[in-house]
Amino acid sequence: MAKAAAKASPFAPAGLPDMPPVPGVRLAACEAGIRYQGRTDLMLAAFEPGTVVAGVLTRSKTCSAPVLWCRAGLEHGKARALVVNSGNANAFTGKKGRDSTRMTAEAAARAIGCGAEEVYLASTGVIGEPLDAGRFVHLLGDLAKSVKPDAFEAAARAIMTTDTYAKLATRTTEVGGVPVVINGFCKGAGMMAPDMATMLCFVFTDAAISQPALQGLLAGHVGTTFNCMTVDGDTSTSDTCLLFATGAAAKRGQPPVSAATDPRLAAFSAALHDLLRDLAIQVAKDGEGMSKFVTIEIGGAESWAAARRIALSCANSPILKTAIAGEDPNWGRVVMAIGKAGEAADRDKLSIWFGPHIVARDGERAGEYVEETVAAYMKGREIHIRADVGVGSATATVWTCDLTHDYVSINADYRS
Amino acid sequence: MAKAAAKASPFAPAGLPDMPPVPGVRLAACEAGIRYQGRTDLMLAAFEPGTVVAGVLTRSKTCSAPVLWCRAGLEHGKARALVVNSGNANAFTGKKGRDSTRMTAEAAARAIGCGAEEVYLASTGVIGEPLDAGRFVHLLGDLAKSVKPDAFEAAARAIMTTDTYAKLATRTTEVGGVPVVINGFCKGAGMMAPDMATMLCFVFTDAAISQPALQGLLAGHVGTTFNCMTVDGDTSTSDTCLLFATGAAAKRGQPPVSAATDPRLAAFSAALHDLLRDLAIQVAKDGEGMSKFVTIEIGGAESWAAARRIALSCANSPILKTAIAGEDPNWGRVVMAIGKAGEAADRDKLSIWFGPHIVARDGERAGEYVEETVAAYMKGREIHIRADVGVGSATATVWTCDLTHDYVSINADYRS
Repeated sequence: MAKAAAKASPFAPAGLPDMPPVPGVRLAACEAGIRYQGRTDLMLAAFEPGTVVAGVLTRSKTCSAPVLWCRAGLEHGKARALVVNSGNANAFTGKKGRDSTRMTAEAAARAIGCGAEEVYLASTGVIGEPLDAGRFVHLLGDLAKSVKPDAFEAAARAIMTTDTYAKLATRTTEVGGVPVVINGFCKGAGMMAPDMATMLCFVFTDAAISQPALQGLLAGHVGTTFNCMTVDGDTSTSDTCLLFATGAAAKRGQPPVSAATDPRLAAFSAALHDLLRDLAIQVAKDGEGMSKFVTIEIGGAESWAAARRIALSCANSPILKTAIAGEDPNWGRVVMAIGKAGEAADRDKLSIWFGPHIVARDGERAGEYVEETVAAYMKGREIHIRADVGVGSATATVWTCDLTHDYVSINADYRS
Repeated sequence: MAKAAAKASPFAPAGLPDMPPVPGVRLAACEAGIRYQGRTDLMLAAFEPGTVVAGVLTRSKTCSAPVLWCRAGLEHGKARALVVNSGNANAFTGKKGRDSTRMTAEAAARAIGCGAEEVYLASTGVIGEPLDAGRFVHLLGDLAKSVKPDAFEAAARAIMTTDTYAKLATRTTEVGGVPVVINGFCKGAGMMAPDMATMLCFVFTDAAISQPALQGLLAGHVGTTFNCMTVDGDTSTSDTCLLFATGAAAKRGQPPVSAATDPRLAAFSAALHDLLRDLAIQVAKDGEGMSKFVTIEIGGAESWAAARRIALSCANSPILKTAIAGEDPNWGRVVMAIGKAGEAADRDKLSIWFGPHIVARDGERAGEYVEETVAAYMKGREIHIRADVGVGSATATVWTCDLTHDYVSINADYRS
């Protein structure tokens, strides 16, 4: 079952951020041996009573059992625990999968002292393999005893699959003048084209914000962060983004806020967006086998949705992504990807830039295009492709990576 | 500019079909040196007066200049010549591109003795590079003098780009009891997800069929043949499928037919469908870098369109295609691709087969699934994946290939 570790992404950070505690949140991780050996693969987060949770889940028609479990929980939005395992997605596992989620939630509820419906679950790994919860639920009691406020990195490591580094981010902001913290971590490297949320992302804050307000903020920001990131255009069965708010800041005088549109949430909203964007970019920078981080910026579109769709058409084009891997400034493939997106674009007004270099203007190659100059630009680690499609004024930005031999190698034998 | 020849597809045929003449059609090819050296790259087909043409063209918003030229010609549907070059797509070349198409059509018209509007054009190769028609139009006079009825293979070879073999097919059928022939050839290997037609496909018949009837037949059959084939999900700027009918069979007593629904066209329609399907499969079998030919068959869908969309979601999934390249029976990725397609599917009724082996039934792994058996099946050259999505009775079939290291290699340096 073990496989050689994939080569680390060239964007693997030199160090991970220092994660301050989030009052009301404690975490722990352990080795459950679900699939991997010699590493952690199970994590538990415990929340103080009063914690509320917002969530955005995959729109896949074949979503996993934990996604269905979370969907039910989000109807009331109260949270006391989060349990996540890696190595098995518990997706497409039928009644066994539902039994497994219930058994896990009930064990966590007993360990924490709450109702099973206040436990949230996520699983990531192989699809279609039954997840035998009986092999690890007995560990939840010990995990519940060992939770600590400073175990964010340990938790982030336990949920990795083909990730080559742990993805963490933290922000401090304020609500009603009272400082609050937002911590988040996520995982994801392949099967990555989030549709509502990335594979797994967990965000924690001590702010006192009502569940509906929290849900409004999260849903809005996921649209312009995780849903604007793609590795391979393949949307997972398990995409889950949960945002837990313990409300502990109320004890320090933060006036509880109940509406997403409340102006006192402006700074929090901006910080949350910034944190989600940071995590989304960390995922694209760890795309399976990637060698270059690519930003696609589409302007001059009819609407943001149209601009995003055109940008995703570029970001998911195998033939463009392999050209980038080959350091070939093949901007004709950008023309192709814009053309196939199905959104309005005026061929004869289309302009394209690779980094600072204009390569096409008004529907043909720009006069100042010098192949050698743009070829030199393509040797960089970060590639920025911008196009104006000439029909409106809306813009959107999408983050992705190139398509390399290593992507093929990693996915040709993921299960072996 | 020259590049090492790509490894031939394992499906390269041992021999090409014998192409009988199509009364009223003569062809020739030559070396114009547009991009490639030491091979033909320009072809001319000349048609007897009275020939009509039907066509289906790319829906790309950034379509090439020749596509626009053909779109104009199809409004009257009269045809006397077809000129096709490889090495340069004349796409995204602005006014220069339009001038280039006009200059080419006028030169061919002079050589043939017809109007420029009766000349049809197609170009394939690099996008965004101006096509200098001045470098080859002087060759059209000689080409027009050398056209022959038996030069189908020569013409098919002249339009190849990354194709590793020429793609030809022929059928004999009858209209109103009179034998007629249908010959076709096409090219395509990458940037291949036809949306209305494949990159370039030309079909010729001596049947006497009105242009509207011909158009009706072609449009219908392209939907279930070329539009059900994909290599990489990337739709070209230049997709063109033209069907020329010389009407020469009328001289042998074939009663001209004017309506696509005329029962006398039943055999012709079936033969045309069969020929287009043959050519579409030849393209998938020559997908860039491919090692396995893959058929995806989706049943139990709400409609044919929904079934096709789900099948294409599987056929275009990088993570599934790389698993197939790695001979990994990773059917969980089929579950993922069905889930992300956005069409109705009942997870808990979903069943999946790999060849004769059922791998999943009613939303979970089938009891009789034996990994070793299905892994052995994956070692074959032809992989058949079938799924029933459990919501209706519609089916669709899509043809594709795997995603290999060679695809990355070919496309990382296509222009170098």
